Amino acid sequence: MAPKEPLVITDKDQMRKWSRAARSQGKVIGLVPTMGYLHEGHLSLVREVHKHVDVVAVSIYVNPGQFSPTEDLSTYPSDFDGDIQKLMSIPGGIDVVFHPYNLYDYGNDTKKNGGVGEVGEGGDDGAVSCIEKSGLGHETWVRVEKLEKGLCGKSRPVFFRGVATIVTKLFNIVEPDVAVFGKKDYQQWRVIQRMVRDLDFSIKVIGCEITRDSDGLAMSSRNVHLSPEEREKALSINKSLLRAKSAAEDGQVHCEKLRNLVIQSITEAGGKIDYAEIVDLESLEKVECIKGPVVFCVATWFGSVRLIDNIEIKLKMDGRI
Amino acid sequence: MAPKEPLVITDKDQMRKWSRAARSQGKVIGLVPTMGYLHEGHLSLVREVHKHVDVVAVSIYVNPGQFSPTEDLSTYPSDFDGDIQKLMSIPGGIDVVFHPYNLYDYGNDTKKNGGVGEVGEGGDDGAVSCIEKSGLGHETWVRVEKLEKGLCGKSRPVFFRGVATIVTKLFNIVEPDVAVFGKKDYQQWRVIQRMVRDLDFSIKVIGCEITRDSDGLAMSSRNVHLSPEEREKALSINKSLLRAKSAAEDGQVHCEKLRNLVIQSITEAGGKIDYAEIVDLESLEKVECIKGPVVFCVATWFGSVRLIDNIEIKLKMDGRI
Repeated sequence: MAPKEPLVITDKDQMRKWSRAARSQGKVIGLVPTMGYLHEGHLSLVREVHKHVDVVAVSIYVNPGQFSPTEDLSTYPSDFDGDIQKLMSIPGGIDVVFHPYNLYDYGNDTKKNGGVGEVGEGGDDGAVSCIEKSGLGHETWVRVEKLEKGLCGKSRPVFFRGVATIVTKLFNIVEPDVAVFGKKDYQQWRVIQRMVRDLDFSIKVIGCEITRDSDGLAMSSRNVHLSPEEREKALSINKSLLRAKSAAEDGQVHCEKLRNLVIQSITEAGGKIDYAEIVDLESLEKVECIKGPVVFCVATWFGSVRLIDNIEIKLKMDGRI
Repeated sequence: MAPKEPLVITDKDQMRKWSRAARSQGKVIGLVPTMGYLHEGHLSLVREVHKHVDVVAVSIYVNPGQFSPTEDLSTYPSDFDGDIQKLMSIPGGIDVVFHPYNLYDYGNDTKKNGGVGEVGEGGDDGAVSCIEKSGLGHETWVRVEKLEKGLCGKSRPVFFRGVATIVTKLFNIVEPDVAVFGKKDYQQWRVIQRMVRDLDFSIKVIGCEITRDSDGLAMSSRNVHLSPEEREKALSINKSLLRAKSAAEDGQVHCEKLRNLVIQSITEAGGKIDYAEIVDLESLEKVECIKGPVVFCVATWFGSVRLIDNIEIKLKMDGRI
């Protein structure tokens, strides 16, 4: 059988029309939101969603709303044709690629309430995304006010606001029953889960395990920017996280010790730590001593590339306090 | 024909099921969100929605998320049986009353990420709603960041965040095609319009003209708390707004003059001004001189009751700058 070619939809009304037609036929609709430049990690999300739904939409959209003007929006890699080929290689293929041009352009009524003069009025904390700088007049943001604050939220102040907002928009356009996110972006996954609960979206959110290259590096579209040497050094992230997990399983439950192990290991390899935190698996609140399920989250710079990774640690507590 | 008795639904899953069943039959669904204690103003919204849809849902829910702990949540009036009778009196009646008990209670997984200890962590500006004080763990808020700031947003810092969030929740539960809001709550209507655009809700938002008692007082559920004397004095609001509009039509386009007219008139009647602003009809940005369509918005206290009212002013500009 020839691989299935997905329908490419760029218009949001047409996307919704397709989705509503599918629903009216009793079909369960799955969505995998991506920013493109797909790798095996994304494809694992698509394979996962296939288990739960009848029809699959993959969105490919680099969301300017989650980048601050100083971040790497302009160098974010893309390869649309390659992405389509990869999606076609998946057993069962996919049905639709939703590939909008600009989800913040609302036509001719936008000039009035926005413009270069209003840069800086965005977030209450003064942080501004690329969208606010564009003057398109978008001003509605979804905030998951506690979960958005820690970890990546500290160094990327507009990030989760942008993510929650674009995912809300995609949910309202595609109207899926199931949506799949990767646990590599652990905080993002928890933010979306909480948002779906708090805003009463009728959508099942599934988190997928991290896909790694054979050497252990977590797959990321940004890995393409690593030099071979940086890539080699970046292996220290996963290696040290695995060592920390082993140490915890062997009884080291003091987070300061476990953190130092990882920080030292990555720093010695030449990485610059953004954060290395052990947090509650659900609330993502900092933990000093492991007493329940936690996740060890790390963000580091290797050269000009920021990489994140994490590992869940679920100890059998057997009566230990 | 006997008046139609609406189905009363309290469960959100059941509400969505009803709505999806209606849609699958090709029916267009209308929603009128209310906080109950219905008056003729609300009924005019229901009559309006009837013109656009096949089936009508009215939600009755006093939303704690839009009240700060110092506001009048506990004294907000209610009369559920009376509301049902009033809705039944409308030609065509309505189909469903959605009357949930608590839209912020997510069951047993909420204790973890919320609690009394976290009071005050809510908004970035430190403002907290009754929901955040309840410790239910709700933490996702929809912010319409520019429109929410002025007018009522100044004295009610959590109000529009709460309104936008509860309306998002209601939209996600009821999934209407059309929703109707009253222009008495002018800023609320503009906030919802902008939110629907920015978040790509597939919902037509209709604004309905203000319904007034025969003496000119804008109808409000809070009017019940006015003493007869206060009620008499409160007529100064509408009267002075009408005078300001006349003055504008007669050529007085300087907003300071028009504002003073209204402020003086209401103050002399014994009202305490919260704000009296002339703003652009859409962006709600302050205007110094009327050059295009504006709305004159007023909030005042009479005794312990806060009343709002407004009047649109659309001058024929005929070449005047």
